[in-house]
Amino acid sequence: MANKTKKMRFLGSADVVLPEGFQAAGVAAGIKGNGKLDMALLTSDRPASVAAVFTTNQVKAASVRLDMERLKGRIARAVVVNSGNANACNGPAGMRDAKAMTRRTAALLGVPEGTVFVCSTGTIGRPLPMKCIEAGIDALVPKRSPQGGLDVSAAILTTDTRPKRWTVPLRIGRHSVRMTGFCKGAGMIEPNMATMLAFLVTDASVGAPDLQRLLRAAVEESFNRITIDGDRSTNDTVLFFANGASGAPVFRPGRPGWKAFEAAVYETTRELALAIVRDGEGATRFATIRVRGARSNREADVAARSVANSFLVKTAWAGPNPNWGRVMDALGYSAARVVENKVSIRFDDCLAVTHGRSGPASQEDLCAVVAQTEFTVSIDLHIGKGTAFIHTCNCTEEYVRINR
Amino acid sequence: MANKTKKMRFLGSADVVLPEGFQAAGVAAGIKGNGKLDMALLTSDRPASVAAVFTTNQVKAASVRLDMERLKGRIARAVVVNSGNANACNGPAGMRDAKAMTRRTAALLGVPEGTVFVCSTGTIGRPLPMKCIEAGIDALVPKRSPQGGLDVSAAILTTDTRPKRWTVPLRIGRHSVRMTGFCKGAGMIEPNMATMLAFLVTDASVGAPDLQRLLRAAVEESFNRITIDGDRSTNDTVLFFANGASGAPVFRPGRPGWKAFEAAVYETTRELALAIVRDGEGATRFATIRVRGARSNREADVAARSVANSFLVKTAWAGPNPNWGRVMDALGYSAARVVENKVSIRFDDCLAVTHGRSGPASQEDLCAVVAQTEFTVSIDLHIGKGTAFIHTCNCTEEYVRINR
Repeated sequence: MANKTKKMRFLGSADVVLPEGFQAAGVAAGIKGNGKLDMALLTSDRPASVAAVFTTNQVKAASVRLDMERLKGRIARAVVVNSGNANACNGPAGMRDAKAMTRRTAALLGVPEGTVFVCSTGTIGRPLPMKCIEAGIDALVPKRSPQGGLDVSAAILTTDTRPKRWTVPLRIGRHSVRMTGFCKGAGMIEPNMATMLAFLVTDASVGAPDLQRLLRAAVEESFNRITIDGDRSTNDTVLFFANGASGAPVFRPGRPGWKAFEAAVYETTRELALAIVRDGEGATRFATIRVRGARSNREADVAARSVANSFLVKTAWAGPNPNWGRVMDALGYSAARVVENKVSIRFDDCLAVTHGRSGPASQEDLCAVVAQTEFTVSIDLHIGKGTAFIHTCNCTEEYVRINR
Repeated sequence: MANKTKKMRFLGSADVVLPEGFQAAGVAAGIKGNGKLDMALLTSDRPASVAAVFTTNQVKAASVRLDMERLKGRIARAVVVNSGNANACNGPAGMRDAKAMTRRTAALLGVPEGTVFVCSTGTIGRPLPMKCIEAGIDALVPKRSPQGGLDVSAAILTTDTRPKRWTVPLRIGRHSVRMTGFCKGAGMIEPNMATMLAFLVTDASVGAPDLQRLLRAAVEESFNRITIDGDRSTNDTVLFFANGASGAPVFRPGRPGWKAFEAAVYETTRELALAIVRDGEGATRFATIRVRGARSNREADVAARSVANSFLVKTAWAGPNPNWGRVMDALGYSAARVVENKVSIRFDDCLAVTHGRSGPASQEDLCAVVAQTEFTVSIDLHIGKGTAFIHTCNCTEEYVRINR
């Protein structure tokens, strides 16, 4: 899929510099057992405003429950992360271990424990290997540097095949501001917080309530608009730190710089979300499902997700086979109102379905669209004004091999 | 999976005799293009009471729409079936072709057109090859015989690997009554009418309203309790004909013979439904998910379906890997209320999870359970009295290969 993947703005290895006042490090602590980086630390040299969005799953990892509590303090100094173990479904021991991670990190950094956040990702239901983790924290703290972003993006991965990062430089008046994000995804990815971790850092100065509102809105248009397999994880977390180290005046809605900052956040979350779908477990194709003409935006969303989550649709596209019949089927069993003989479906510019039946496009043309690494399926229900979109990927045998 | 599959009561080739007054035939009409049987006809020599249950998909095959209309007449003389083409999403031409199938069949049989039903299964969105189908009907009518059931069970298959049939002989007083069913399944199988066709015939005498109530109740406990891939099809149909040819008095609720007849219908629908899951596309394992302790039966059902439809759960079981963490995850994102630290999960007799965390069973014992061809996962949410069950199968690479 690499050929059509948009070039990331933060892919070079030499110029990976975090926003002002942030440092980072990654180490191989032995959790994954394959020698790869599996712990990361991201710190701010001054108190940062913090915003966060968490999984809606009722079964939540200890780290998620702890971070939800800490978010109330509105101030962050660091986040410590491990991959290879989700620390979910570990009972009271899970919370004890999550707290121990933040306590040790806080002590070594000399910051209040309540300003240290923690994230875990990996297998559910195994105790955290605390010996490895404690040694990992001890190694992370002195290793931090402004160039540590690359290691963070690698250390948080699980079945991902490549790191995901994005940065947007902003010029606001005479101030340079930087917006940078990292994330991991790959599997157990579903809307309403995909299975993922994402970390956003900026040296802009933003109040925590404004940051929280902006993050929630941006997540709604990015991480909540992707699906890989329809499984929502126990650990999904997006953390956003704004430390003000750029020296730029506080950004507030309606004030100078806000629009540009807002756009940078939307761009960063959107590009990271798309990078997750493009790197879906076993995926070789990226598809955008657009629905319009639904009775409401909510029904458009329901219809789009029904198509995007149908394994029969996703396996057909592995063919590559457009199989618009399966798209019609998935629309029909969605909770959205669908009138069969009003539906039209385009694969890119090819009209596959009109009035609910085969349209003018030839099977060859439709196959050619679906054979691309990226394409768009545009559905018009022709019964209202509701619109929605969602990004998904195909499903290959490799998805099963990875997860069996 | 054959070793643990229950022996069907209707598997012999010599003794396949339909209930009194029914005849059947199957032919290869050239729709499938591989020379296999692809058309079937099932007729009653006298007017039969008819009951039916259809897909809840809003996108319905022409045959489904036509049968829904004909059901109002309450009388059936025949059903003509083709596989290899779903005749769905074909616009007005689809309805014209479906009607033409019943008209030709009715004319050759000398029965009213309104008493002939039609079913199609196969690819969506391709015009029916009417030349083949007309020749098929012409061949089917003279070929009918009381021994034709075997051919029917073969002619309705698509990606199924084996025919599915069941018969229950009943002795009511001095009368012999027979209850016989055929079905096909394999893919696009989801609760609320799995993707499937099923035909039930009995020589009992039952009024159409009683037959309809009984069928709907039996489907709720059988075909609506299975899932293979969570995709609900456009063509799902269960047809039930009762022609009274046994000479037994009319069965009515509360009257002699009803309980035994009711039990025979439940057994037949249940065994056919289980046969569909056991022959799920690419499936090698059959699992029953039982949930209890939910706030309501409806929430228990929602929780059970969330687990049964999770592709991460189903691919893990292909491992074989119990991966109870993914079961916890799927429970957590279901719409049912779940309190993480109250959940317990058993794989057969092995307690995998207690109080939401790892239980006493060893990983080896859990793997041994999941390595079986059939096993049961019993979940107790411990917050109420709601119960439910659903049957599902694992998901292997073969599922993707079949559908790509």
